Amino acid sequence: MFICRFNDDRLGVIHDGHVVDVTSALASLPSYSYPLPSHDVLIANLSSLRPWLERACVNGLRYPLANVDLLSPVANPGKIMAAPVNYADHLSEARDTSEVNHGRRIDEIQKVGLFLKAGSSLQGAARGVQIAQPERRTDHELELVVIIGKTGRHVSRADAHEYIAGYSIGLDMTVRGTEERSMRKSIDTYSVVGPWLATPDEIRDPGNLDMSLQVNGDLRQKANTRDLLMDIGALVEFATSFYSVHPGDLLFTGTPAGVGPVKPGDTITATIAEIGTLNVQVS
Amino acid sequence: MFICRFNDDRLGVIHDGHVVDVTSALASLPSYSYPLPSHDVLIANLSSLRPWLERACVNGLRYPLANVDLLSPVANPGKIMAAPVNYADHLSEARDTSEVNHGRRIDEIQKVGLFLKAGSSLQGAARGVQIAQPERRTDHELELVVIIGKTGRHVSRADAHEYIAGYSIGLDMTVRGTEERSMRKSIDTYSVVGPWLATPDEIRDPGNLDMSLQVNGDLRQKANTRDLLMDIGALVEFATSFYSVHPGDLLFTGTPAGVGPVKPGDTITATIAEIGTLNVQVS
Repeated sequence: MFICRFNDDRLGVIHDGHVVDVTSALASLPSYSYPLPSHDVLIANLSSLRPWLERACVNGLRYPLANVDLLSPVANPGKIMAAPVNYADHLSEARDTSEVNHGRRIDEIQKVGLFLKAGSSLQGAARGVQIAQPERRTDHELELVVIIGKTGRHVSRADAHEYIAGYSIGLDMTVRGTEERSMRKSIDTYSVVGPWLATPDEIRDPGNLDMSLQVNGDLRQKANTRDLLMDIGALVEFATSFYSVHPGDLLFTGTPAGVGPVKPGDTITATIAEIGTLNVQVS
Repeated sequence: MFICRFNDDRLGVIHDGHVVDVTSALASLPSYSYPLPSHDVLIANLSSLRPWLERACVNGLRYPLANVDLLSPVANPGKIMAAPVNYADHLSEARDTSEVNHGRRIDEIQKVGLFLKAGSSLQGAARGVQIAQPERRTDHELELVVIIGKTGRHVSRADAHEYIAGYSIGLDMTVRGTEERSMRKSIDTYSVVGPWLATPDEIRDPGNLDMSLQVNGDLRQKANTRDLLMDIGALVEFATSFYSVHPGDLLFTGTPAGVGPVKPGDTITATIAEIGTLNVQVS
């Protein structure tokens, strides 16, 4: 199942190139008073909600995909984790390009660790990336995004798949400079996720997905998730050796070589096989 | 006013060494359905709630402070920002101590930028710090915490005070190592905030507060916030030059010299003048 959020916080399921409005299924979720849950309550209840989604699909209003504004498929991630330098070709590129490394030593991911992106930087496809600090270079970074499905700590690589609610496409937009990644990559609109959530049963092997990114039709990044230095299971194990993960937490898995600058007016087209295509305007 | 959260998500006001239960005031807050607000709804409504809090104080049940379990005064921070190396004496200490810098160059805060701590690491005073990765060194870092009161972007240093809902005491607990700060400082229970929120009218000058930290009665850190390299206004300006801040976001302002290891069984006592004292057990 491919699940999206669209327009004014409506919930949809993708079917035959259309979005079917299944917002009525949300009525089965409880309401909350302060203090609110710190995880995403849709993702936490996704399994039990699935029959409701299927029923709502039958009579839901259908919209052509081109006519809806796609939002981030996860509304309330408790945290956004991200892997730096997790493809060998990008590690080389980062080490060789002074505009990327800004004089800092680029170590391998096991030494660098994961970083965090602010939830306030989350953006869906429709609203696009707004360039901040135009005097500096803002780069695109295409990534497979893992959506955590349940709470876990000290999860082993072998068990990691049990903690995954789905997959999506991410743009880890980045201002180059000397500041820590968790600041340079947390600018408002700099964490694009979409176009929707693909449930695990839609993906044959998340460790073997072709991915590519074009800017204005020019190919910039092209890779396959089999080339991840630390694969999805290892990333979940690494993350949960430090902290707990919760439903709706997002894990950006790292970008391959080919990162480069974008400017207002550009169109970014990011595709990951078996998930879909994310179209994003830069302004 | 000094506002706390205690026991089973109850709300309190500190009065004469007692906690007055004002949970009834929360009834004036709305309830929410998915998607939930991504900011803290108590902090967002704190000004309008204040008359309710004052009324609830009159007849609220009173508990001796020693008899309640204090929680983080902010339940749902959208993000936790933190300043590295923001006191000159700690910058020197970090540069001179290989167990702190782990071979990495320690730049000044303007170059390093702010980092993020995961919301899942948030902890109140009562439940204490649980040491993870005992084979590595976990250090205490005493910090003044600023609680953001309203949404802002590109806030000037001069206007920053308008965006502050209150102050608290923070322990930015840290595993030493090579990984990015946003991972090493995001272990569950490694962001202690408390004992309560002090509203700005309780603090004469947040830029001139004595602070100290003891471990098992031994003085480890002693400083005054006047020695911040980047003061509170400058930190808010710096943060909001990258991203928006929202009600309930927390800003750890940096630690002075004297950081050092703690181990299970230790008691940390952190005091900031005009705010109070935070007592935390390490296990």
